[in-house]
Amino acid sequence: MPTQYTHTRRVQFYETDAAGIVHFSWFFRYMEEAEHALWREAGLRIHTADAPIGWPRVATSFEFHRALKFEQEFDVTIRVAEITKRTIGYTCEMTQDGQRIATGTLRIACVNKLPDGTMKSTEIPPGVGWGVLGGGAEEGEEPKKR
Amino acid sequence: MPTQYTHTRRVQFYETDAAGIVHFSWFFRYMEEAEHALWREAGLRIHTADAPIGWPRVATSFEFHRALKFEQEFDVTIRVAEITKRTIGYTCEMTQDGQRIATGTLRIACVNKLPDGTMKSTEIPPGVGWGVLGGGAEEGEEPKKR
Amino acid sequence: MPTQYTHTRRVQFYETDAAGIVHFSWFFRYMEEAEHALWREAGLRIHTADAPIGWPRVATSFEFHRALKFEQEFDVTIRVAEITKRTIGYTCEMTQDGQRIATGTLRIACVNKLPDGTMKSTEIPPGVGWGVLGGGAEEGEEPKKR
Amino acid sequence: MPTQYTHTRRVQFYETDAAGIVHFSWFFRYMEEAEHALWREAGLRIHTADAPIGWPRVATSFEFHRALKFEQEFDVTIRVAEITKRTIGYTCEMTQDGQRIATGTLRIACVNKLPDGTMKSTEIPPGVGWGVLGGGAEEGEEPKKR
Repeated sequence: MPTQYTHTRRVQFYETDAAGIVHFSWFFRYMEEAEHALWREAGLRIHTADAPIGWPRVATSFEFHRALKFEQEFDVTIRVAEITKRTIGYTCEMTQDGQRIATGTLRIACVNKLPDGTMKSTEIPPGVGWGVLGGGAEEGEEPKKR
Repeated sequence: MPTQYTHTRRVQFYETDAAGIVHFSWFFRYMEEAEHALWREAGLRIHTADAPIGWPRVATSFEFHRALKFEQEFDVTIRVAEITKRTIGYTCEMTQDGQRIATGTLRIACVNKLPDGTMKSTEIPPGVGWGVLGGGAEEGEEPKKR
Repeated sequence: MPTQYTHTRRVQFYETDAAGIVHFSWFFRYMEEAEHALWREAGLRIHTADAPIGWPRVATSFEFHRALKFEQEFDVTIRVAEITKRTIGYTCEMTQDGQRIATGTLRIACVNKLPDGTMKSTEIPPGVGWGVLGGGAEEGEEPKKR
Repeated sequence: MPTQYTHTRRVQFYETDAAGIVHFSWFFRYMEEAEHALWREAGLRIHTADAPIGWPRVATSFEFHRALKFEQEFDVTIRVAEITKRTIGYTCEMTQDGQRIATGTLRIACVNKLPDGTMKSTEIPPGVGWGVLGGGAEEGEEPKKR
């Protein structure tokens, strides 16, 4: 039973475009806001300046069903859909008064930050996984990974 | 033989994030820049204030292979992959010195802008399609659509 | 005694840059968020699709005292500093745990939207002004303007 | 005789807002694009991942004279107006077909990046200053500073 997190958001003016609706690039930012809130909720921080590991995005997608306009409020729900040894997959749903606005996916990978500024795929450390993000394991237990 | 357009772009500082690389939401903007340049190249404008039709995005995706950093130059190639009666599908490839950075897709739909501010799917007008964007038809010829 | 509005905000990841701090262009967006919240608080909407008037920004500035980083929380306070016949001037202060982060100014003008897409300066309508934004006048009373 | 740099830019769709014009926060990004191009032109890089110094912005302003719309082309000219021991001041002018769009200012400071992630004001190193950005001094000569 994967963890999920929902936050409510209001469309800001600078997020709209000349078509009068939220520019589609913003949905990826809305999704990431929810992802980071989910990590905070789990007691984790996805980025710190001196962490040896990082979490670059490796794939993402969105389908857009309805437009959002200035000042409208909507809900963003992100769910941990799958955790493998080296990646985390999320699904995301945005709704407004019960109507589906957009549905998205996001896959991130765990990497070591190398001294030369590049990144190398690595295994997700024990503290991050189903046990913490997924809620299904006891505290301190090794996260279940596929 | 679908039209394609390539433009070269340099990473701006405000496009980077605290991980020191281009934030993933920017790739969708890079792709759209190339799309709009493709339309201009075909003598078309995808948005005008008083046009009765519009082109909202209905689905999009990206896979990220390598990171981009401040001041790096890269190429964005967009290709018209499919034109149906009501939608246009693109594929996008971003490369840097011949290495693949990211690959994306984008599907847009043709809509009528209704007086109440909503949008309704409509058929792509004759002036837009394979004949113009696709380059395979004579000038003025009805675009070939599936 | 001019109206003011304070909202608390958390730094999002996409607002940071490769220097590890919030990119300076975001402070203007934070200020505008607070401005629009102030208008909503006063029962007003600064932008609607079919309003005959608009509120373009005519001048703005910021001084930056301290940097903001990912996930930090801060307060944005906007104050109506001056209302003239055709413009509204704000001052803005951003603080974090009582420490000043940045101080800004913003001046907006009331314009008529002309049919050709241009804008022409006009007088602020009676419903907007000290009486409503400034809180010093009775409901329905003509706002006091200089 | 201070250095200046002009680049030509086209308005991208994601830079517009629901009022149909470029959102004012973008002018600060346009100005910074020109600043960084000026530094590159002088053979300098304003940001590298491992540089011991950085260049945070300490104050900036813009006055807006005319609106910019989707696909319009405009020129951004940045000029080094003043170099002191620890800061550089620029002025910026944006024009379109000879008409003034906006005028801005920007002041940046030279800082040492401290191990704890904070920044401390420091003197501008000899390689950056009037001699390099200002063009008025011989190569290798100590830049003239006030």
